[in-house]
Amino acid sequence: MANDQPTPFSVPAACPVPFSNHSTVQMAHGGGGRMAQRLLDQLILPAFANSALGESHDGAVLDLGGQRLALTTDGHVVRPRFFPGGDIGCLAVHGTVNDLLVCGARPMALSASLILEEGFELAELQRIIESMSEAARGAGVEIVTGDTKVVEHGCGDGVFICTTGVGAVLPGVDVRPRNVEPGDVVLLSGEMGAHGVAVLAARENLGLESTIVSDTAALTDLVLPILERCGRQIHVLRDPTRGGVAATLNEIARTAGVEIALQEQTLPVSETVRGACELLGLDPLYVANEGKVVAIVHPDAAETVLSHWRAHPLGVSASQIGVVKAGQAGLVTLLSPIGGTRVVDLLSGEQLPRIC
Amino acid sequence: MANDQPTPFSVPAACPVPFSNHSTVQMAHGGGGRMAQRLLDQLILPAFANSALGESHDGAVLDLGGQRLALTTDGHVVRPRFFPGGDIGCLAVHGTVNDLLVCGARPMALSASLILEEGFELAELQRIIESMSEAARGAGVEIVTGDTKVVEHGCGDGVFICTTGVGAVLPGVDVRPRNVEPGDVVLLSGEMGAHGVAVLAARENLGLESTIVSDTAALTDLVLPILERCGRQIHVLRDPTRGGVAATLNEIARTAGVEIALQEQTLPVSETVRGACELLGLDPLYVANEGKVVAIVHPDAAETVLSHWRAHPLGVSASQIGVVKAGQAGLVTLLSPIGGTRVVDLLSGEQLPRIC
Repeated sequence: MANDQPTPFSVPAACPVPFSNHSTVQMAHGGGGRMAQRLLDQLILPAFANSALGESHDGAVLDLGGQRLALTTDGHVVRPRFFPGGDIGCLAVHGTVNDLLVCGARPMALSASLILEEGFELAELQRIIESMSEAARGAGVEIVTGDTKVVEHGCGDGVFICTTGVGAVLPGVDVRPRNVEPGDVVLLSGEMGAHGVAVLAARENLGLESTIVSDTAALTDLVLPILERCGRQIHVLRDPTRGGVAATLNEIARTAGVEIALQEQTLPVSETVRGACELLGLDPLYVANEGKVVAIVHPDAAETVLSHWRAHPLGVSASQIGVVKAGQAGLVTLLSPIGGTRVVDLLSGEQLPRIC
Repeated sequence: MANDQPTPFSVPAACPVPFSNHSTVQMAHGGGGRMAQRLLDQLILPAFANSALGESHDGAVLDLGGQRLALTTDGHVVRPRFFPGGDIGCLAVHGTVNDLLVCGARPMALSASLILEEGFELAELQRIIESMSEAARGAGVEIVTGDTKVVEHGCGDGVFICTTGVGAVLPGVDVRPRNVEPGDVVLLSGEMGAHGVAVLAARENLGLESTIVSDTAALTDLVLPILERCGRQIHVLRDPTRGGVAATLNEIARTAGVEIALQEQTLPVSETVRGACELLGLDPLYVANEGKVVAIVHPDAAETVLSHWRAHPLGVSASQIGVVKAGQAGLVTLLSPIGGTRVVDLLSGEQLPRIC
């Protein structure tokens, strides 16, 4: 229940809002699409304007006495809290570790802030905490500080977890959307859409659980070695979570002022995810991943990256999925096997709410 | 509404839980008292065991290539969101800035993770974001990265804000509970209880709003100068938020293995807060503050600290409130004006839920 008690400090109902269609928060404001982008552009970024935020990255890079420090944060509200392949606890750790990695940083430490709902089972909380702990151990980071708040029954939803990570950016590494340039190639570390479909199937009891498992994983072993080997040839890295590969590439194309051209036949999707997506009317390009990385690199680095990824269990299906062109700034296109081209646009909202 | 849909991954009801009286989260688990301590000691700390967490500090201190980095996080769920003297936005910034300061660090940057409820007024969100921005500017830090999630109407409560901060620990400074030793003196920067009483009065429409205003403020100008001047003579710093001065001193006494003896007549409380507390049956020692700092220092540093504080608008009522003794480890006592001594124990729960 929202707190709508009148107080002398409540907001006047007539206060003008710069949002054309909505005066209240919509589910789509939390997706990876156009409405989320508008909320960020119109309301949040202007208030917090600073150079780090302007980079449109998954985290910020700060200077600490000559050492570059990456800082990244994410709230986790996934529903259901347990799904095939993972749970809200390991997801919260993997998501933040991966956001540090795609800033070009070696993850050092995490913080965790829990918002618990009164009446939530302590036994379930314990399972979630243990899952966080195991995921952190697996990723080689420690959860070094935290906070716990409790809200009344009906004012939360079991548990929400905000994880924040700090990491040291590797020497000689500089990954950010603005480094992307025409001629670069777009690489993806594996098959798309497993996380989103696994969560949706568990939420809606679709009976697909036995075959589709979330890909939630820490990308440490895919990312650090290629940064060490290829250095500045790695122009940008991103984990395609909310909004999928489509939202990730749209954001990069917009920030870098380039066009990205994808080839449909090279897009890796498993048969089971493809089948489930057809059944559900979803496009795997827009479905969330939690254990995949997109790298846009100088063409000379492509083979090094792909061969490293393919030698690792998390990257066996890695492939080059597209190229960067001067073209039209901000545009992402998809060439079909029969030669047609369509625009891969940002969705207005989100196909799958509360996916992470 | 809690998500209690049955799924194949739900927790068995019979799972054993190491909590004597409760198998579910209680409001008191979010307070500054004994139940919160037990949740931390029994469920969270064992899973995340590491040296930084073991310090029982308001944040962690990490080593980054020889530079010490402080990391601290807090979730904010205060209700109502606007109260005399502040709102959830500035509170989220002040709280995290202050937690960095009491780690002995100069605040560098913050992250903000918002969990919004579907249907929340965007105009109110805008006021809160602007308040965060103004508070950050006032405290000399930038909000450099963030995240926004949306949950369905009825699964949240307007907005929850998790802020995380990083800062550089000042050279030559080492503040932590374990440094406290017998002979030290306990200093408090001003009058107790204003935040807790202001929020309670606004929440319950007690009609006290005009006279009691939250003390929410960044403590930068009280903390950094005394660290620079007194260095290692400052043994520990803490901002007495949830659970008030009583909870803060209990935690320090327990971690440091010392006894802390307070003198009732030296405890600074304004007449209005004292009156409101009497009316409401609250003890100001246990009421949350959001713009006060407790310093436990070597006696040689006491006058320097107090005179600096008293010269600043936020510290005019600063005073020495007690001393550290070898005595009984973990005990906090209060000497009354007529010579009686009582134990200042940790409360089981929290007098005022959702105070920050």
